[in-house]
Amino acid sequence: MNYIEKLKLELGEEKVSDSLEHREAFARDESGIPELYLPDVVVHPESTEDVVKIAKIAYEHDVPMTPRGAGTSLSGGPLTVQGGILVVFDRMNHIKEIDSDNLMVITEPGVITQNLQNEVERFGMFYPPDPASLDQCTIGGNVATNAGGPRALKYGVTKHYLLELEVVLPNGEVVRFGKKTKKWVAGYDLPSLMTQSEGTLGFITEITLRLIPLPHYVQTFLVPFDDEVEASKVVSEVIARKILPRALEFIDRSSIDAAREMLPPNIPTDARAILLIELDGREDAVMAEAEEIAEICEKHSAMDIMASMDDRDRERIWQARRDLLHALEETGKIVRIEDITIPRSRIPEAVSKVYEIEKEIGLTLAIFGHAGDGNIHINILHDRGQEKLVDKVVERLCHVAVELDGTITGEHGIGILKKPHLHLEQSDRVISLQRAIKNVFDPKGIMNPGKKLP
Amino acid sequence: MNYIEKLKLELGEEKVSDSLEHREAFARDESGIPELYLPDVVVHPESTEDVVKIAKIAYEHDVPMTPRGAGTSLSGGPLTVQGGILVVFDRMNHIKEIDSDNLMVITEPGVITQNLQNEVERFGMFYPPDPASLDQCTIGGNVATNAGGPRALKYGVTKHYLLELEVVLPNGEVVRFGKKTKKWVAGYDLPSLMTQSEGTLGFITEITLRLIPLPHYVQTFLVPFDDEVEASKVVSEVIARKILPRALEFIDRSSIDAAREMLPPNIPTDARAILLIELDGREDAVMAEAEEIAEICEKHSAMDIMASMDDRDRERIWQARRDLLHALEETGKIVRIEDITIPRSRIPEAVSKVYEIEKEIGLTLAIFGHAGDGNIHINILHDRGQEKLVDKVVERLCHVAVELDGTITGEHGIGILKKPHLHLEQSDRVISLQRAIKNVFDPKGIMNPGKKLP
Repeated sequence: MNYIEKLKLELGEEKVSDSLEHREAFARDESGIPELYLPDVVVHPESTEDVVKIAKIAYEHDVPMTPRGAGTSLSGGPLTVQGGILVVFDRMNHIKEIDSDNLMVITEPGVITQNLQNEVERFGMFYPPDPASLDQCTIGGNVATNAGGPRALKYGVTKHYLLELEVVLPNGEVVRFGKKTKKWVAGYDLPSLMTQSEGTLGFITEITLRLIPLPHYVQTFLVPFDDEVEASKVVSEVIARKILPRALEFIDRSSIDAAREMLPPNIPTDARAILLIELDGREDAVMAEAEEIAEICEKHSAMDIMASMDDRDRERIWQARRDLLHALEETGKIVRIEDITIPRSRIPEAVSKVYEIEKEIGLTLAIFGHAGDGNIHINILHDRGQEKLVDKVVERLCHVAVELDGTITGEHGIGILKKPHLHLEQSDRVISLQRAIKNVFDPKGIMNPGKKLP
Repeated sequence: MNYIEKLKLELGEEKVSDSLEHREAFARDESGIPELYLPDVVVHPESTEDVVKIAKIAYEHDVPMTPRGAGTSLSGGPLTVQGGILVVFDRMNHIKEIDSDNLMVITEPGVITQNLQNEVERFGMFYPPDPASLDQCTIGGNVATNAGGPRALKYGVTKHYLLELEVVLPNGEVVRFGKKTKKWVAGYDLPSLMTQSEGTLGFITEITLRLIPLPHYVQTFLVPFDDEVEASKVVSEVIARKILPRALEFIDRSSIDAAREMLPPNIPTDARAILLIELDGREDAVMAEAEEIAEICEKHSAMDIMASMDDRDRERIWQARRDLLHALEETGKIVRIEDITIPRSRIPEAVSKVYEIEKEIGLTLAIFGHAGDGNIHINILHDRGQEKLVDKVVERLCHVAVELDGTITGEHGIGILKKPHLHLEQSDRVISLQRAIKNVFDPKGIMNPGKKLP
């Protein structure tokens, strides 16, 4: 019996499909990679036991396995570059326990991040990480890529909330890493090793996250400037005054032009930059910080300071921010989005280098991103056939990141897109250490092969 | 030439000592382990280059190496159980750069934690982790053990502040893990793998930490109760109201009796439990939370609510808390301090089991600790010759921790003391994975051998 027949037999036909139509539905992610990567079979496990069965069959037959959440990856992580079994976690989408006494949540990996956030908020708790795709992406994918988002500035990234994981190793063994306690130092920090491993070490089948109290009050500001430099000075000055907003986002003119229809109608037509600033905490404290920030914005010739009037207002502003990518795509162009990250103080240098590259290579580069934490998103607008130019831009951007003491990827992951550039940032020895660690978990090399490490 | 002569030749005699007197000065830590572990030679490197030289000589001669900060370990981590070279980082004690623009600090590992905190506070920044030994322990030791402390409740532990490390591998190669950016997902999370590795993977020679803005205002309360159960109900209710104090400490009657001379004189003589509660943030917000907490304490029959009047007051309270261990030692007894950690809601069960063990085995067990995060410190008071009874208590406590879904060590580490009990918490497979990872970094097994993994 071949392995696909075995999968059907052991899991049941309703969880296993090798029809061309079904395989095609999972052959892409959101990275804009033009190639189609067809899995040989798609499996939808409903339990840890199902995942164990899949892994045992794959291990026996030496077949590659690739885990997939919602497929919102921007780096090619869930693409089956060597075919084999695609394991889609869309049916393992239950929250197992919300523990209000201990401020934690236990969940299956396929739960959509925003749903998880909404559920815990009903109990007065808060799970901060907020990647732009939060209404589609899954918490398992968030752990596997150590997802960030705007709120990372104040609240950190996914790994800062991780307590315990259940993992199915590539040979089908079930292990548990970490503990359901805020402090835990028994053995090496294997939960953190699993974050940002992009599915190359094992399947994450259960996740325990710590939560924090939901902030009492949130205030959001949209501040347009007619001068990009002044806007970036505001960012520096807010941090210099030791205020950490929950978000501090920068949107440049190309992005403004593309997204204008989705932004509040009162954005001045000659705005060259917009800051999106969000504060949270007790109401009095937020008010005090808001006053300080307004003062800084005025000093730097802000064209206006628009405050959100209510939650719906706030949600509309954020939706526009998250929809920027789609707005850029509606220009008719294909968008490759890059996520180099540098120490925040070096953003002005980075931005001027980005505009140099734009001039030189001739593709439009629209910048928006998390200015507060130095994670800037550079959108490379292009047409089919221009992939070589895109690759050139990406390579140049990776060089800029490393020259400015930063990283080639702050939150999107290595996947397949950044693999050729990892050596810019890491020595051969560091890469070989990681290859050896991968080999400890996956001696047969069947776990999401062709990703992450060159 | 033997390896000690080589060390003297390559590093200079003033950095290398094999005199009995010098070796004896480093043959203990703070764990209360009765045995003396004499290193064969003690080396005090002054730079990464020195550490490289040490490692190359040790690697060539197959000699064990053990890193040591201030020797405040409570688990035997820096003891040279197999002799060899003890590498003491007391001379690599310089802060390299305080970067106020990017809220980070770059430091050598031998800097004392409190000095680092004081220095960054001068620039309005805050490094929260605060192990009780913070006026002696080093930041390198803090990273190697993923140190916690009272403030972990609100601010997390050492690994949550770690950005980038320079590491000297056991064969003398220098590598860098991580990046000086708040977001970084290029490759596996090797910085986190180094935290809580207790010196078994390599030497940490440079550390970059992220910082946060220094809170504007701090308020500390000392609240005595004549009933332990009421005190523990206050802890639960504070968390249930979704208030996260920066610290929420519990002190039981045995500890109160021992430390009474150091506590404020107005602590009622019949107090059976004390809560130490500390809040921080903007002044208005702190005041609002303080009011809520006072209300909860009153409801649960607090005997008094004493607020700190000023910083000196506050420091005196904390010094008394930190000195509890020494106060217990002044009873004439030897103190072994345990640090099991459980989900916070299970503290009452744990405490009653601790008192059962006390009754059964007949040694006094004094409890204090970080009630807010479930990390309770159980002090086993004993005399020389009672080590077997102590071991029995420890084993029982480890069982209790695991039964209540907790960990055998929340912040003190495995070292040598907890090695026999790791299997209670982790499966053979999880332990063998860790052994294989250790082998990737240290194939000769010369890096702090005999520690951490059974």
